[in-house]
Amino acid sequence: MKNFISANDVADIDALIDKALHYKQHPYIDSQLGANRRVGLLFMNPSMRTRISTQVAARNLGMDVIVFNTDKEGWQIELEEGAIMNGSTVEHIRDAAPVLGSYFDILCVRTFPALADRNTDYNENFINALVRYSGVPVVSLESSTLHPLQSLADLVTIRETFTKPHRPKIVLAWAPHIKPIPQCVANSFAQWVNAWGKADFVISHPEGYELSEEYTCGATLEYDLDKAIQDADFVQVKNWSSYHSYGKVLTTATDRMLTLDKLRAAPNASVMHCLPVRRNVELSDEVLDSSHSIVTHQAANRVWAAQAVLSEILKANTK
Amino acid sequence: MKNFISANDVADIDALIDKALHYKQHPYIDSQLGANRRVGLLFMNPSMRTRISTQVAARNLGMDVIVFNTDKEGWQIELEEGAIMNGSTVEHIRDAAPVLGSYFDILCVRTFPALADRNTDYNENFINALVRYSGVPVVSLESSTLHPLQSLADLVTIRETFTKPHRPKIVLAWAPHIKPIPQCVANSFAQWVNAWGKADFVISHPEGYELSEEYTCGATLEYDLDKAIQDADFVQVKNWSSYHSYGKVLTTATDRMLTLDKLRAAPNASVMHCLPVRRNVELSDEVLDSSHSIVTHQAANRVWAAQAVLSEILKANTK
Amino acid sequence: MKNFISANDVADIDALIDKALHYKQHPYIDSQLGANRRVGLLFMNPSMRTRISTQVAARNLGMDVIVFNTDKEGWQIELEEGAIMNGSTVEHIRDAAPVLGSYFDILCVRTFPALADRNTDYNENFINALVRYSGVPVVSLESSTLHPLQSLADLVTIRETFTKPHRPKIVLAWAPHIKPIPQCVANSFAQWVNAWGKADFVISHPEGYELSEEYTCGATLEYDLDKAIQDADFVQVKNWSSYHSYGKVLTTATDRMLTLDKLRAAPNASVMHCLPVRRNVELSDEVLDSSHSIVTHQAANRVWAAQAVLSEILKANTK
Repeated sequence: MKNFISANDVADIDALIDKALHYKQHPYIDSQLGANRRVGLLFMNPSMRTRISTQVAARNLGMDVIVFNTDKEGWQIELEEGAIMNGSTVEHIRDAAPVLGSYFDILCVRTFPALADRNTDYNENFINALVRYSGVPVVSLESSTLHPLQSLADLVTIRETFTKPHRPKIVLAWAPHIKPIPQCVANSFAQWVNAWGKADFVISHPEGYELSEEYTCGATLEYDLDKAIQDADFVQVKNWSSYHSYGKVLTTATDRMLTLDKLRAAPNASVMHCLPVRRNVELSDEVLDSSHSIVTHQAANRVWAAQAVLSEILKANTK
Repeated sequence: MKNFISANDVADIDALIDKALHYKQHPYIDSQLGANRRVGLLFMNPSMRTRISTQVAARNLGMDVIVFNTDKEGWQIELEEGAIMNGSTVEHIRDAAPVLGSYFDILCVRTFPALADRNTDYNENFINALVRYSGVPVVSLESSTLHPLQSLADLVTIRETFTKPHRPKIVLAWAPHIKPIPQCVANSFAQWVNAWGKADFVISHPEGYELSEEYTCGATLEYDLDKAIQDADFVQVKNWSSYHSYGKVLTTATDRMLTLDKLRAAPNASVMHCLPVRRNVELSDEVLDSSHSIVTHQAANRVWAAQAVLSEILKANTK
Repeated sequence: MKNFISANDVADIDALIDKALHYKQHPYIDSQLGANRRVGLLFMNPSMRTRISTQVAARNLGMDVIVFNTDKEGWQIELEEGAIMNGSTVEHIRDAAPVLGSYFDILCVRTFPALADRNTDYNENFINALVRYSGVPVVSLESSTLHPLQSLADLVTIRETFTKPHRPKIVLAWAPHIKPIPQCVANSFAQWVNAWGKADFVISHPEGYELSEEYTCGATLEYDLDKAIQDADFVQVKNWSSYHSYGKVLTTATDRMLTLDKLRAAPNASVMHCLPVRRNVELSDEVLDSSHSIVTHQAANRVWAAQAVLSEILKANTK
């Protein structure tokens, strides 16, 4: 594995899940693998789980980690080729990327979409420029359109949790929110579940919230949430803003908040959420505090997902 | 020791002081104790001494340390049970705490009171929820009402400095300030001196600045500062806002700033302050730059106090 | 070497360059030198290259590193002796410095001039007070007037790049910018090139941008940029605001932006810039993306310059 930007970077998803579960049992088994190797964690936006879990994962592999909050500790980065930089941007990615590449063996980066213009966001200019100009492997800590470390942790959690003989039924259920939220977690979950290919996958959201076909790949779309979650094994709950009416909040639809009452149709369902979750807006207290919820478990697995990815990159990119 | 939130968590204060003084002589004697153990330092508010000294202490024990400025690098945390989170808070402590507990072996946290409502502040909702929901030991790096690592360092400094045969006379002297300041350092110092029980303890402040009886426990109250410091061995100087007229600044009383002239009544007194100190407002240059002052010494001891506490917690909570 | 504040702190510049180039070949050769030694990196202002390269350098030497963004994670520091601190400053450098000195073996600090009053800036009150009161070696990560780690990396890059038999011709060329920029990089480069003494050194800028004689030491001044860069081996490009009309932007002079056309007069010139660079304002894309540019190389050498300096300080200041 050279970079880790999307599911397409992974040759064998089950093998990567196996690796993550192996690290969960033996966190320090590769504690010398990253000796004298250094990873930079660049954040353009706040992060808690992603930052800390990746930091822990890298340390478990014996790597040195440097966190750099580019937005707060640095300055604004220019992405446009040919820009005359007489405005608010202080440094061009073409200059910053190779310098960072000289300081680090791996660069991890979180960017965030502005949700103003779809093309701008879906072009992924920042992370693509980092791949192009840094000269070192790049790991996405969430980009404008995808969140692959989250999705890998989600599949790790699903495989670890599910013990029945049938194919699991996995539902991605849109939930209400008060603000416009990126599509990246939803896109990425759809992409990974499809790439994994070992589940019956249903997506449910109000009309107008259809995700890009590039990621949903013909997954079953069921607008009716009650029908969608019927007999589900996993319900991944998440808000996103509209892809087609880009970045818009079309409805707050409070009746789409998952409750124990709704879950009667899926008595064995494990409820997932990438966190942070707005309680009693996206998900009710009664669900989050019930035995349905595996959200803490899911967040804890972020460490092992990140450790598996960093490990694969270290092994594939020896100095 | 499971948690370190107040003097009540410590079975034997003198033994803990001994341990701190032992680490001062031998900083690296337990450099393997924390191998493969990780401590998270969470800050809701700025900190210099507490943050750096705790970081140094943890490293001396071989622990991995991750600092997370929750207020700047993360988002606002909801503390109210049952809250409908459609406002400015992004994540509930019930969800954040167990995730952080899964990433760390010990969680250290600094919170700060709003000084608006006494019950809210004195309920210590944040640190109590962290203890309740994180599943790992919690260390206070200063809470709304107490600052135990500071108080332990204060007692370490007093025991280290004092060589006379009599019981030391310790004075907690209120000093003026330009802003409303929490009571936590004063509360905590009173609690620890009382729990230690080996000093004559006098508190002096203007009327209206009486601290909670829960912490002063019947210590001698002498409003007259000149009388209070008579023959004192230690004068701990600190401002706090009113506990009874909660959070209010009742007087700026500049005549209560300690000067060399006042200290003639206590020629052998060591002057202490937890820092940061506003020079020529809380304490005069002439005192801070005189041989009375042991404030640097006191701040340096923060490392050994933190190291003793982390060490006790590591030993009591083996994996 | 006790402190590293200016070229005057270095007895033998070539020996220090040798050391840096040696570390470039053997990054981990002294990985035990800094065992149980701790360096504090204090930032009053944003920094990317300086912060990360110094952090990497210290880790290569086996040191423990703590970064403290004083401006964001701490509070405002008072520098004025005798100040009555009833305003916005929270702690005096006289109190902060010795405490930080007790926590660290080496203190590195970045400060930034306000560009309002020349005497205030050129007095270097912050870094001088840190030297005076901290009790430990101090390394400048850029001060109001100088940037010695940058200049050392510049000379490392020049010595590494230049293979001709003649003395290199080095030009410091002022470039336009949209904001008032400190003189420190230019001052420092002039000071180091002069102290090194092995080059023909020419400075070029519009009238009114003359630097302090203290640093230029009689270097050739050629206002005409075309004449100045004639047959140059190295052109260090940098903006600075006026020293004489202190902190003022006297001209934006876009014709002084270096282009390939101008560089026809110096076909073998390597173009340098300390970065961040405003593309198509300070330097054109065509130059930065041409084989003339060695700016990435120059920035990468920051690690080895910092490693050489920290190493020298560690060796000269054994505990």
